[in-house]
Amino acid sequence: MTTSEKLSATFAALADPTRRAILARLASGETSVTELAAPFEMSMPAISKHLKVLERAGLIARGREAQFRPCRLEAGPLKDAAGWMEHYRRFWEQSFDRLDDYLQELKKKEKKHGR
Amino acid sequence: MTTSEKLSATFAALADPTRRAILARLASGETSVTELAAPFEMSMPAISKHLKVLERAGLIARGREAQFRPCRLEAGPLKDAAGWMEHYRRFWEQSFDRLDDYLQELKKKEKKHGR
Repeated sequence: MTTSEKLSATFAALADPTRRAILARLASGETSVTELAAPFEMSMPAISKHLKVLERAGLIARGREAQFRPCRLEAGPLKDAAGWMEHYRRFWEQSFDRLDDYLQELKKKEKKHGR
Repeated sequence: MTTSEKLSATFAALADPTRRAILARLASGETSVTELAAPFEMSMPAISKHLKVLERAGLIARGREAQFRPCRLEAGPLKDAAGWMEHYRRFWEQSFDRLDDYLQELKKKEKKHGR
């Protein structure tokens, strides 16, 4: 996969609340698929499908043991996705600066009008 | 839309290389749809579809003028997505720490063996 294809796979994997919840669960430690599936009102095949999407995107890895194959979080693709977003940081910081300017302006006006 | 639905829409919008290229173009300033479409070997309806996905996700906004409706970047959803990713930062920093430990270990071994 190219870097761009990897980014697309990462973002597509993150575009689902169940998959984000799975990653949040794995952030507190590796666990079995059964345990992982427990909090979701979802069939095992449905959970397995979500795990496959996460695995293909490189966001999780499975243990090698035949019986108990614990899932664990792999943060590399998240690092790359966050790196991509960094390029846009100045835009959201700018908009907060503008909002802050506006609030300062409002405060000044309020003082002027003696309120 | 709930916060979770917004995150899903943002990540889904970012999961496409053309849409990411459109955002990258808009990062250097607002522009017309025609100008925006020029570098892509894509029909106008295909570009319009991508713009609609970005607009629904709140990642771009269109001007009000009937004739010339320039597109501009809206960074709010990117800020929220980056905020979500921040929770995982310790994982990717950890893995780099582990790699660094491993490299230090290798260096020590090399010295020991006098290489």
